[in-house]
Amino acid sequence: MVLEMARRAGAAQPVLGTATSEIRRLALDAVADALEAQAAQVLAANAADVESAVAAGLPGPMVARLSLDPVKWGKVVDGVRAVATLPDVLGEELTSWQRPNGLAITKVRVPLGVIGIIYEARPNVTADAAALCLKTGNAVLLKGGKEAARSNEAIGAASRSGLDAAGLPADLVQVLPASREAAAALMGAAGLVDVLIPRGGAGLIKAVVEQSKVPVIETGTGVCHVYVHEAARLEMATEIIVNAKCSNPAVCNSAETLLVDRAVAESFLPMAAEALRSRGATLRGCPETLRLLPSAEPATEVDWSEEHLNLTLAVRVVDGPDHALAHIAHYGTRHSEAIITEDAAMAARFLREVDAAVVYHNASTRFTDGGEFGFGAEIGISTQKLHARGPMGLAELTSYKYLVAGTGQIR
Amino acid sequence: MVLEMARRAGAAQPVLGTATSEIRRLALDAVADALEAQAAQVLAANAADVESAVAAGLPGPMVARLSLDPVKWGKVVDGVRAVATLPDVLGEELTSWQRPNGLAITKVRVPLGVIGIIYEARPNVTADAAALCLKTGNAVLLKGGKEAARSNEAIGAASRSGLDAAGLPADLVQVLPASREAAAALMGAAGLVDVLIPRGGAGLIKAVVEQSKVPVIETGTGVCHVYVHEAARLEMATEIIVNAKCSNPAVCNSAETLLVDRAVAESFLPMAAEALRSRGATLRGCPETLRLLPSAEPATEVDWSEEHLNLTLAVRVVDGPDHALAHIAHYGTRHSEAIITEDAAMAARFLREVDAAVVYHNASTRFTDGGEFGFGAEIGISTQKLHARGPMGLAELTSYKYLVAGTGQIR
Repeated sequence: MVLEMARRAGAAQPVLGTATSEIRRLALDAVADALEAQAAQVLAANAADVESAVAAGLPGPMVARLSLDPVKWGKVVDGVRAVATLPDVLGEELTSWQRPNGLAITKVRVPLGVIGIIYEARPNVTADAAALCLKTGNAVLLKGGKEAARSNEAIGAASRSGLDAAGLPADLVQVLPASREAAAALMGAAGLVDVLIPRGGAGLIKAVVEQSKVPVIETGTGVCHVYVHEAARLEMATEIIVNAKCSNPAVCNSAETLLVDRAVAESFLPMAAEALRSRGATLRGCPETLRLLPSAEPATEVDWSEEHLNLTLAVRVVDGPDHALAHIAHYGTRHSEAIITEDAAMAARFLREVDAAVVYHNASTRFTDGGEFGFGAEIGISTQKLHARGPMGLAELTSYKYLVAGTGQIR
Repeated sequence: MVLEMARRAGAAQPVLGTATSEIRRLALDAVADALEAQAAQVLAANAADVESAVAAGLPGPMVARLSLDPVKWGKVVDGVRAVATLPDVLGEELTSWQRPNGLAITKVRVPLGVIGIIYEARPNVTADAAALCLKTGNAVLLKGGKEAARSNEAIGAASRSGLDAAGLPADLVQVLPASREAAAALMGAAGLVDVLIPRGGAGLIKAVVEQSKVPVIETGTGVCHVYVHEAARLEMATEIIVNAKCSNPAVCNSAETLLVDRAVAESFLPMAAEALRSRGATLRGCPETLRLLPSAEPATEVDWSEEHLNLTLAVRVVDGPDHALAHIAHYGTRHSEAIITEDAAMAARFLREVDAAVVYHNASTRFTDGGEFGFGAEIGISTQKLHARGPMGLAELTSYKYLVAGTGQIR
């Protein structure tokens, strides 16, 4: 059944992918109109999902992510309208050149084709991801968590009615059954699905990467570091680590570990600790940190190597840049890394040597985000190096092809 | 053992990846020097491989691909020297912009990291692939066919001694054992290997795509079509189909199927058939083709859907563009497709609607090649849409990262 849905997606995709920008914009407006008109159905389906989730004893934060209300839903619809107005990236000439034999080669941006999204119990993803895929001329297969099954069905039905109203194939957006079997079939649909993007926790992403025969873009896990170099302005460093840790600790671009040069640890750490604790942070430190901050807890190996996703911050005093870079190379997840220093040569070395999607000098890691980068939208943050790295906007949902114009050339 | 080799590759890679262009150029020169100096060892190892292959009764074409001689080896060494002189692509600023909050974002080209190549019994690939990976700052793990094991070991040893002479880590180039276990370990090395590129027949590529947990770039299979539109110049069309089919039928960019508009079939097919047959081609046709060319054989489903890799050409008379486009969408492998026509609007439609890496107007499909595109080198031809599509040169062996310069920005 999933393979048949994938085939239908593949048949529908070229209709949108080779349409004009105007038609794609009208299609997204029609989808937004339908999502708005069918708000009552979506919210009723969501209420049923939430009721089941509460009855099943799901944790509060998961229920919160699952829940929609008229205000949240209004923002989702506004998000779809905002995507509609973004500049079209399709058809863009990426480069062109002529060969000595006269062949004229043009590299143009085209849709990826059929995109699969595997995600958890966040029904807003259903609308967000569909909008981004449609804007870029792709068909999308949406496989959400079973807790959100009724919400996703309702959002999918509304989206499809919007496409239908716009005169486009409804099969451009299809919500798959919320079953393990459907996920397995999607991951096995090599040749029918061009790329899978998992969105969710580390366990989900690891499972998709390990099982999928369809190419995957790995997103998410961020063990991000802020390194306070001995030449840092310590007030700036304090503001940045407080922001990087405390402004939204549940997201992948928040900092998990603070590295501090030994030369400034004694003056910096008490100041930083006070600011961090006033924002609710808990510190877990290396032995030298514990000497300087007796009330911190000892850090274990897990504190260096996993996302806390809460207000816990690991703190390590390092013996200068080599030590800091080695720590980041060992424990980092190639997501976002920051150095705080007034030493331009040191900053240049850090930016050059650190292997991560985004490397910062004197700024918070929290800026690793499609919106903050100015992309206007984001489907996820890639932590792999193939195809896309860092925040993925519209361009990252596209591929290219070469058009070659000849006059009878043979080889 | 393979995982340990991958770890060593990962440790060695940054030394080359963050070096200057000049150091990478010198490293490749040193590798070429060592490959030249150790020609006797390479050729002796190859002679032993060839002797075993002949004794084991391997088919002639496979033995031919396996065999090296001083002239062939000289060309391999020249190829490495040519790669050394190509312009460096690393460090290139792909784009940069400033955000309203003052953050300056620069997107720069960086190596992919550790690249795995899985290939068959072509020892020249060992040197070619190593050169391209080193030029782009990557470490490479080479897993060749067991028939070429001694040749590959000798080429790997020479390459490593060249790196050593250049003062770089030898572990930038490692030849894996030629065993199934090594291939399985390489495909399972997610997190240690950044990308796997299989090079070889359809069976090898399918196996890697299905089994690998490491991201794969699918290369190769080409069921390429030449469509002779009713507004074609028939002499040009004849020259192009003869070139596309006969100039090198064993490669993926050769044509497998000729589609001819009914309106010109009667005038075109006898002329084309004569030219094709004079070059040794065998024609297998649809019923209408058989009516016009009684000596052709009937085509079966396999003739439309698989690479012949020999001088067999499938021929179908179609009822105009819609029929031709539908045939290509159904049987094509998204590799290379050509239309022959003097009708500019028809050509534009074909270029827009055909979903393939390279789409041609009035030229042979044989130009889908890194050298013919002017890339100076080629690691393979991608038939997937993720990361790279069509001929892959140096740029396609790289990723990027974002460098963000701030003045204390927080979010």
